[in-house]
Amino acid sequence: MVSSRADPARTSPCEPVMTRSTRPTGTESEEPHLRRAVCPGSFDPITNGHLDIIARASRLYDTVHVAVMINQSKKGLFDIDERIALIEEVTADLGNVRVESFHGLLVDFCKQHDIPAIVKGLRAVSDFDYELQMAQMNIGLSGVETLFVPTNPAYSFLSSSLVKEVAQWGGDISHLVPPPVLEALNARLRQQ
Amino acid sequence: MVSSRADPARTSPCEPVMTRSTRPTGTESEEPHLRRAVCPGSFDPITNGHLDIIARASRLYDTVHVAVMINQSKKGLFDIDERIALIEEVTADLGNVRVESFHGLLVDFCKQHDIPAIVKGLRAVSDFDYELQMAQMNIGLSGVETLFVPTNPAYSFLSSSLVKEVAQWGGDISHLVPPPVLEALNARLRQQ
Amino acid sequence: MVSSRADPARTSPCEPVMTRSTRPTGTESEEPHLRRAVCPGSFDPITNGHLDIIARASRLYDTVHVAVMINQSKKGLFDIDERIALIEEVTADLGNVRVESFHGLLVDFCKQHDIPAIVKGLRAVSDFDYELQMAQMNIGLSGVETLFVPTNPAYSFLSSSLVKEVAQWGGDISHLVPPPVLEALNARLRQQ
Amino acid sequence: MVSSRADPARTSPCEPVMTRSTRPTGTESEEPHLRRAVCPGSFDPITNGHLDIIARASRLYDTVHVAVMINQSKKGLFDIDERIALIEEVTADLGNVRVESFHGLLVDFCKQHDIPAIVKGLRAVSDFDYELQMAQMNIGLSGVETLFVPTNPAYSFLSSSLVKEVAQWGGDISHLVPPPVLEALNARLRQQ
Amino acid sequence: MVSSRADPARTSPCEPVMTRSTRPTGTESEEPHLRRAVCPGSFDPITNGHLDIIARASRLYDTVHVAVMINQSKKGLFDIDERIALIEEVTADLGNVRVESFHGLLVDFCKQHDIPAIVKGLRAVSDFDYELQMAQMNIGLSGVETLFVPTNPAYSFLSSSLVKEVAQWGGDISHLVPPPVLEALNARLRQQ
Amino acid sequence: MVSSRADPARTSPCEPVMTRSTRPTGTESEEPHLRRAVCPGSFDPITNGHLDIIARASRLYDTVHVAVMINQSKKGLFDIDERIALIEEVTADLGNVRVESFHGLLVDFCKQHDIPAIVKGLRAVSDFDYELQMAQMNIGLSGVETLFVPTNPAYSFLSSSLVKEVAQWGGDISHLVPPPVLEALNARLRQQ
Repeated sequence: MVSSRADPARTSPCEPVMTRSTRPTGTESEEPHLRRAVCPGSFDPITNGHLDIIARASRLYDTVHVAVMINQSKKGLFDIDERIALIEEVTADLGNVRVESFHGLLVDFCKQHDIPAIVKGLRAVSDFDYELQMAQMNIGLSGVETLFVPTNPAYSFLSSSLVKEVAQWGGDISHLVPPPVLEALNARLRQQ
Repeated sequence: MVSSRADPARTSPCEPVMTRSTRPTGTESEEPHLRRAVCPGSFDPITNGHLDIIARASRLYDTVHVAVMINQSKKGLFDIDERIALIEEVTADLGNVRVESFHGLLVDFCKQHDIPAIVKGLRAVSDFDYELQMAQMNIGLSGVETLFVPTNPAYSFLSSSLVKEVAQWGGDISHLVPPPVLEALNARLRQQ
Repeated sequence: MVSSRADPARTSPCEPVMTRSTRPTGTESEEPHLRRAVCPGSFDPITNGHLDIIARASRLYDTVHVAVMINQSKKGLFDIDERIALIEEVTADLGNVRVESFHGLLVDFCKQHDIPAIVKGLRAVSDFDYELQMAQMNIGLSGVETLFVPTNPAYSFLSSSLVKEVAQWGGDISHLVPPPVLEALNARLRQQ
Repeated sequence: MVSSRADPARTSPCEPVMTRSTRPTGTESEEPHLRRAVCPGSFDPITNGHLDIIARASRLYDTVHVAVMINQSKKGLFDIDERIALIEEVTADLGNVRVESFHGLLVDFCKQHDIPAIVKGLRAVSDFDYELQMAQMNIGLSGVETLFVPTNPAYSFLSSSLVKEVAQWGGDISHLVPPPVLEALNARLRQQ
Repeated sequence: MVSSRADPARTSPCEPVMTRSTRPTGTESEEPHLRRAVCPGSFDPITNGHLDIIARASRLYDTVHVAVMINQSKKGLFDIDERIALIEEVTADLGNVRVESFHGLLVDFCKQHDIPAIVKGLRAVSDFDYELQMAQMNIGLSGVETLFVPTNPAYSFLSSSLVKEVAQWGGDISHLVPPPVLEALNARLRQQ
Repeated sequence: MVSSRADPARTSPCEPVMTRSTRPTGTESEEPHLRRAVCPGSFDPITNGHLDIIARASRLYDTVHVAVMINQSKKGLFDIDERIALIEEVTADLGNVRVESFHGLLVDFCKQHDIPAIVKGLRAVSDFDYELQMAQMNIGLSGVETLFVPTNPAYSFLSSSLVKEVAQWGGDISHLVPPPVLEALNARLRQQ
């Protein structure tokens, strides 16, 4: 970057960067490092698209944190505790997923939990630029990396807001969300 | 997907997928899994952009394989052994990088080395569609995931072919490649 | 899709899909099917860009429905009846255009009118991803296809909101909307 | 366009364009027009992605022409007659598909067969710009419209060249091409 | 374009367009024209990204106007006078920058100040389509050209709103804004 | 950039950069600088799209150099001298255009002629990434800026190779190239 201050995430790779906590201190023969990642989002509610990313991350990392972003200026269809409960229910059998809420900067959440990597699904080009901007900002602020996994094409058209809009008008969304979410959505929409 | 055959990488995430070898068998308290990734490419020659991705992957994985693709129908500026030697020299101090050549399908290389993840830099939207196609094909063929990390913006305009073109016309590329590559490039171009 | 339920729009094309109502039951020598399409939008107000798409669709289909979306949470510059009247006026000489309002899901409108195809203009890449998501959702919900026609380049920069913004500040928009719309816009803006 | 010469495809839609042969001369109560479309391509060989587009077009049009482009400067894996035979075999049960070869401009093929519409799949943004350029050129040359249908997401990563590359290295492509094509591909690759 | 009225900016380039005020009346040997450009924006507040574009424009033009857009429907963090004062402070040593506010159409501002060119940074593809639409509208309304300069990659992820969001949560932004802006931001956020 | 060496084009804009030759040494009241720009390309042959960009650049700069790139590994339809003669003929009445050939790096051509700015048309997103890479490389090598002007939408689908392909098959291209180019193309194609 243009800053003259030391920026470990942007050090020229030719110079050894031995002090980074996320770097393994040895080679393959030594004890491997515990690998954590975080899947952040609003999850209002979790869809099959989110679940696909979380399940794939849970196979690539020792522990996957699902971080539900608290946005005080925007009331969701489900409150934070309901969202967390639904995510916990549908990810229970993956065995290594922890669901938590956070507010503020995602990189601060990462620092608190010693998480070196954010894992996000990338659906389409229109996601790409915004996500890249966030990723560049995050690595610049804290050295936390963002890894993008391509969304399963079967879910590439899926978003929480589209699911809610279709459900509201009576469209069939049973192939787009896990069964507990379908039930919760139908119950909530009947109340309205 | 459309196939009726079992496809573990595409199993609905609601169904437990306990038999996958890449999935950790326990929770955080148990012994962590050794994490491997591969950075594939032609590397003719390796640039600072490649090196940035490899160095970042080396901090996120226990072992990073650099796989130099053998393309028999296209002669490069450097032969495969020269490319491997240059990569080994400039990644030596990272401590957990292995450089190898391969031909055929990258997913076969991954299976041979028990590598569950391909790590690639994503420079720009024009990369995105092709890379996404390859990633979808690879996960469909074998369950190997592709994780994209955003290229350091300082190298977003960089490619081996552009570096070679500029060097050929006498342009200064000393900020675009590591010193051993600069030296090798200048020596090679003087021969021509 | 991932659903195990029968989904005629996504049936593998190798299996005959004889029961679809939109499929012609014979070959060219038999009586042709009546072909309907719908052009949906807000049309607040209709621009030359919209009209270009409707006119081209009217040459490709026996009947073109123009469906004006009712959005109760967003008041427009023109109310729904005014928008319909303007569209009817400027499409009258095309001879096979019907203008109607709808609310809810577009695919329900299509089912009610036995319309197998949505025709939309595609202006630019930024439209592309969102439109593709909607199209995938619509075919998944109901088998209704979306066909995109490239916008006439002369109107590729045009949108109702941009036209209203320019008109509001006194810019000349007479080449961007049909004459009755220009008159209505000027009258409405004088009232404000 | 900027030309002052009459250009029927680009006439301002406000002016009646009564003389166009593709425009129905009446309203819904009258006899419907026979609707033809063409799906062009190299089809070397046809994949499930091509077949999906052809099958969907065959439900939207009375007759679908599949036009296999002859490119004399580029030898394919299959010759034109083999490609046509494979397409005919896998589209036979659709009932309204005609397979032909052509060389020269696609719009000339359209004129010869009185086809007002080209139907193409749109996989990704990287297709978009090139396809849009071709579509604009074609409508400018002859008034022939191009309609884009979004590729089934399950095939969005698919291309004939990728299928051939994977097959050549022994990868499983049985879910990517129809059975007769799989057989032909395997036979051809065994010969090489 | 489609209008039959004379449109000097869109005249076929083969026809001489001698009457345009922005066209130099002679060749290199004659007295050069005074070249002005405008950099428009909200600048709430100015970032290093904006400053990079303004500084580069100041080297390419005799005078650069910075036009701070007044948006009465949206209250910013800084009011217009504060934004202007900050821009003036950080551009003072460039020597040829004038900072002004405007409301209404940018092309009217250009006409008032005899400015033939708008200079904007282009960060990413997601900017591209919207900016292109605005540019096409502006040239069509008035003949004012828009010239896009690629953003310095070091700032490609930067925006005023992202800077404010990060600052609000205590993230370090000292490498993203000039020192006087950093001070003003911190003072403003302490007040809130 | 990441380099520690002084890079005038990438100096933080807060630091005065007084020594740059392209920076005007005074304010508006002083004598304006002579402004030069270059429009580079292959021009095999020049189309109405190229001519539109050159004509617009000729109104924004005192002198516009058209630089015809010599590519020794690729024989064109027209040789360099023919391309230059055609460009000179169709730009003669613009009065401030100079046509020259060059080989090697464009930035070296710019240095030789004291040209601080490259002007290029931007047609579509697919151009964008490649052009941005070239622009970043050029500013990094030499401080030469690239300014992109949006292509006239009427020519957004136009390229020399598409024009040649259409002409070869007898398509009408009279609205896509200037009359002298049409004549030269027809003569050349009759010879083949």
